[in-house]
Amino acid sequence: METEGELIYKIAERIFPICRSITGDGVRQTLRILKEYCPELEIKEVPSGTQVFDWTIPKEWNIRDAYIEDSEGKKVVDFKENNLHIMGYSLPVDKFVSKEELLKYVYVEESQPEAIPYVTSYYKEKYGFCMSKNRRDSLKDGRYHMLIDSSLKDGSLTYGEIKISNGGGYKEDQEIFISTYICHPSMANNECSGPALAIYLADWIKRQSKRKYSYRIVFIPETIGSITYLSLHKDDLKEHVIAGFNLSCVGDNRAYSIVETRYGNTLTDKVLKNVLQYHAPEYCNYSFLSRGSDERQYNAPGIDLPVCSFCRTKYGRYPEYHTSLDDMDLISPEGFQGSFEVITQCIMALEYNEKYRVTCFCEPQLGKRGLYPTVSHKGQYSEVYKLTNLIAYADGKNDLIDISNRIQVPVKEMISNVDKLLEHGLLEIAEKEI
Amino acid sequence: METEGELIYKIAERIFPICRSITGDGVRQTLRILKEYCPELEIKEVPSGTQVFDWTIPKEWNIRDAYIEDSEGKKVVDFKENNLHIMGYSLPVDKFVSKEELLKYVYVEESQPEAIPYVTSYYKEKYGFCMSKNRRDSLKDGRYHMLIDSSLKDGSLTYGEIKISNGGGYKEDQEIFISTYICHPSMANNECSGPALAIYLADWIKRQSKRKYSYRIVFIPETIGSITYLSLHKDDLKEHVIAGFNLSCVGDNRAYSIVETRYGNTLTDKVLKNVLQYHAPEYCNYSFLSRGSDERQYNAPGIDLPVCSFCRTKYGRYPEYHTSLDDMDLISPEGFQGSFEVITQCIMALEYNEKYRVTCFCEPQLGKRGLYPTVSHKGQYSEVYKLTNLIAYADGKNDLIDISNRIQVPVKEMISNVDKLLEHGLLEIAEKEI
Amino acid sequence: METEGELIYKIAERIFPICRSITGDGVRQTLRILKEYCPELEIKEVPSGTQVFDWTIPKEWNIRDAYIEDSEGKKVVDFKENNLHIMGYSLPVDKFVSKEELLKYVYVEESQPEAIPYVTSYYKEKYGFCMSKNRRDSLKDGRYHMLIDSSLKDGSLTYGEIKISNGGGYKEDQEIFISTYICHPSMANNECSGPALAIYLADWIKRQSKRKYSYRIVFIPETIGSITYLSLHKDDLKEHVIAGFNLSCVGDNRAYSIVETRYGNTLTDKVLKNVLQYHAPEYCNYSFLSRGSDERQYNAPGIDLPVCSFCRTKYGRYPEYHTSLDDMDLISPEGFQGSFEVITQCIMALEYNEKYRVTCFCEPQLGKRGLYPTVSHKGQYSEVYKLTNLIAYADGKNDLIDISNRIQVPVKEMISNVDKLLEHGLLEIAEKEI
Repeated sequence: METEGELIYKIAERIFPICRSITGDGVRQTLRILKEYCPELEIKEVPSGTQVFDWTIPKEWNIRDAYIEDSEGKKVVDFKENNLHIMGYSLPVDKFVSKEELLKYVYVEESQPEAIPYVTSYYKEKYGFCMSKNRRDSLKDGRYHMLIDSSLKDGSLTYGEIKISNGGGYKEDQEIFISTYICHPSMANNECSGPALAIYLADWIKRQSKRKYSYRIVFIPETIGSITYLSLHKDDLKEHVIAGFNLSCVGDNRAYSIVETRYGNTLTDKVLKNVLQYHAPEYCNYSFLSRGSDERQYNAPGIDLPVCSFCRTKYGRYPEYHTSLDDMDLISPEGFQGSFEVITQCIMALEYNEKYRVTCFCEPQLGKRGLYPTVSHKGQYSEVYKLTNLIAYADGKNDLIDISNRIQVPVKEMISNVDKLLEHGLLEIAEKEI
Repeated sequence: METEGELIYKIAERIFPICRSITGDGVRQTLRILKEYCPELEIKEVPSGTQVFDWTIPKEWNIRDAYIEDSEGKKVVDFKENNLHIMGYSLPVDKFVSKEELLKYVYVEESQPEAIPYVTSYYKEKYGFCMSKNRRDSLKDGRYHMLIDSSLKDGSLTYGEIKISNGGGYKEDQEIFISTYICHPSMANNECSGPALAIYLADWIKRQSKRKYSYRIVFIPETIGSITYLSLHKDDLKEHVIAGFNLSCVGDNRAYSIVETRYGNTLTDKVLKNVLQYHAPEYCNYSFLSRGSDERQYNAPGIDLPVCSFCRTKYGRYPEYHTSLDDMDLISPEGFQGSFEVITQCIMALEYNEKYRVTCFCEPQLGKRGLYPTVSHKGQYSEVYKLTNLIAYADGKNDLIDISNRIQVPVKEMISNVDKLLEHGLLEIAEKEI
Repeated sequence: METEGELIYKIAERIFPICRSITGDGVRQTLRILKEYCPELEIKEVPSGTQVFDWTIPKEWNIRDAYIEDSEGKKVVDFKENNLHIMGYSLPVDKFVSKEELLKYVYVEESQPEAIPYVTSYYKEKYGFCMSKNRRDSLKDGRYHMLIDSSLKDGSLTYGEIKISNGGGYKEDQEIFISTYICHPSMANNECSGPALAIYLADWIKRQSKRKYSYRIVFIPETIGSITYLSLHKDDLKEHVIAGFNLSCVGDNRAYSIVETRYGNTLTDKVLKNVLQYHAPEYCNYSFLSRGSDERQYNAPGIDLPVCSFCRTKYGRYPEYHTSLDDMDLISPEGFQGSFEVITQCIMALEYNEKYRVTCFCEPQLGKRGLYPTVSHKGQYSEVYKLTNLIAYADGKNDLIDISNRIQVPVKEMISNVDKLLEHGLLEIAEKEI
């Protein structure tokens, strides 16, 4: 049987080749593939020119073909070979130029001679080509044909949204929010990994039988997409979202990282740090000063949503970032498996997170209920401590994550004890104290 | 003249030989001896079968004799030689068995070949013998006579209680609480030391002329005794107790230890840590996660009494613990002296602990009152700082322990300055600010 | 053009030779010189015998001449050579004595054989001479003539006060307070430096065009002067002062030091620590337990003014302190320049310190306003972060100093960004949230 990580990797593999940008058919094509895994995904369009807070939705960009041909008719770079060769949002062009003139439109990353850099120009209309330093350096003098068969005209910004609210939970009016972005062309970790994990999570959430919360998962273009979504749904989100995760760069198998909310003190920060302290104690904790993805908008003053970014290796912190080296070999089923486990553990911790209260005074007599070993072995004993320490701090003041932090037991190892104690009537939810 | 430590050691010596358990005549005999040192000690009985919160008071256990005799009539173990040889709460037995059968009822501590371990079975009816590994290993094949002349039948749980409330103090409706346990047979540190110190303290408290608070000192069997006492007196204790100390393992002369309350933030935690930081700066501070004695019950959710455990070397943290090696050589007058000083310093600190306020604006002119040296020597000067720093923080916001922590002067070195300043009218108790 | 440090040094130079004490003509002469730099300085007199809180203003002391002459008519010490030779507040004397008798009135600092120590006896009437250990040791046997031509009689305590409140600021009813002392004779760092810096600052403040706050600068004798000033102006100061600085030992060029307020948590502590963490990261932070100058009175219980002491090397912490070695060579223009920069940066930070709030939801689009570089270079980029991080925390909850601490950018580097954002309407003062 395949692991979750393997299944997620396969989704990433399918969307990898598509040329995406912040608008256009690449986004629609990607969302249609994702919809196959979760039919609840709804595809939405917002027209170019719409004012979204301080911004305006730009024209829609589409591209069919592009290349540079040398005087011998040989294609120096070809959009069909790698869509990173064309600067995102390039205007159309069809022009014969000297090598000198050509180089004005060529972007390379000098420090990585083999890599094609990823470059865009969304808000200033121009065009350009990207190639490896090595290829540029090998260009001979002569005439070149620059061709970009693109269009930039009024259209719309496209995003996807999934709402899951049929779990029957008693807090169904509260939501856990997941956001990821679908505006990057053929790069694997940043960002085929986020959408692949998010759509798999959507399906996994639907399969959980008892769900206390509702869930909302959005697939948007970065920055302009989150601003657009917030301009449409700010009040709704502020009223309902209790925790949220921005998923980005979740497919490689190196570090684990969190980018905190503005003050690092929300329920999301708390649950992510709690899970990671046991799952990957050396995880990287970035403050909001190191932000760079959609957590920027979700945490802006006045928005104030409890949304952290979760990454394996954080965007901008690995050498392949924003180049053609960020390919399907950089990510792996193991990398996805780790991300999947962290996020599902967070979800389970949130689903079980209550302020519990023990129902009797003094310690309950566990022995008469078969919850205390009659002969003590060392291993068993530590299991007993997990139980008695849970009881000791179940005073209606701590939620389950607080207790986990205090008694240093992962929430996933506390859940069966919570169930047992609830069953024996020794624990209750201290709702009135919250 | 004898030190307090010597006097306390002698009390411990008297009660050491008695075979105690959580019920029975050993407890009564112990309390009668303690009563000689403080006639206010009242001996109380609670019948077997009484429901106490989630527990039930067990049958009363008494034992007259017990031994294992080999086929030659030689006693392999003898209750009269050491009462640890019999598992606590052993049912009566009188049976001839093979060595193989005998060994099913024999408990040893494999890691300590010379030690008789201390074993009990209060809530599951069975019987057993304890001996050193060495003795067990030397047993020859053959028939053995197991005899335990014990009884387990309805009776009562016995405890002792002292109330001291005739000090004329203005906070006599508030109590300082001391608890210790009298359910362990012949082991010295754990637990002849606690009762010996507690009864000596009772007498010492009575002898103090001005007492702001009332005092209550209880001598109970561990766990079931504190649960019983709490089931009878919970509301009374919660209303009146401002600080409490559970005394256990207070006779050896190695470490100083505290087991914090559930959140480590009560007045008791504060005063104990304050006193110990000066008296024994390397003291061991155990969180509530390391609990194990009656602080478990006093700090249970809904009980929430400010009771810390105070120990020299903490129960469970010294090799002789719960074995015959915990004998009168393990404890000493010096060990008791240290414990006595810590607890009496805590009591004095609590008795003097007020939020004081200086009565004039700006610094008072100490010189004209003879409180400031006219010629300054280095030694004197630090005495002046003790005085001026006390004044600087006597702003009605800090209690005396807060000031001691802040200015790094032990409370015992502040008391005479407080008296002097009160006398000169430069200090007052800021009662309204509390 | 001269630096501020050079100009301040020259002021110190002018007042250095004057013989000052807590009362008397030396104080008046000093204040008259300072008034030349800021005519707003008003000279006030409070009569001897006035009760000021727990103290009484002493008699006024003046001295015209003093010396010790040996039997050959040679002056062993001469007031005219160095006014430190005479114990402050010495009674008049005119007496021929033996060397043995003379030595009863001679003070030296044994550990510094070349230094004349600074000694006073304000509140016990006596007389005395100070000299270097070397000079004392060279005294021959024989008769000596002790002469002190001084007077101690009813007069007054003199102090100076400057009020600057014509800046048109919208918080003109709130004050920034500066205090320094003018009671030390010829010592440079302690204390010609404080008055020289303070009077220069008074002039500098007047020259600043937009001033939000009013300013008050006082020149008083230490201890009795601050007590006197507080006894007259306590309620006024408590109502209006938002931050205050006691300036002492501000002319040497070694350390930077702060003596915290009583709890180290006022706006003054905050702004001084903020400025120093960037200006001199290794500055010395002394708690109130290390106090010793007028911060003692400003922070006394019931006074509770937010006044820190600011020093270069703190009084009492440099070897030349309170001796003739604290001369004009110990201080320097560079030393003053550093002090001037710290205090003026504090003032600017306070003047700009508001809780700002960004005016749009999500990040503003900086590009369309020319606030975002179109091509990013590394250097520029960190400038962009200074801007975006300021915006991110401009949520109406943080004042500018909070933001500076959080984003680790000095306030002085934030001021132009604040101005730019205000100008573009992207920032507003969140007055209602304060």
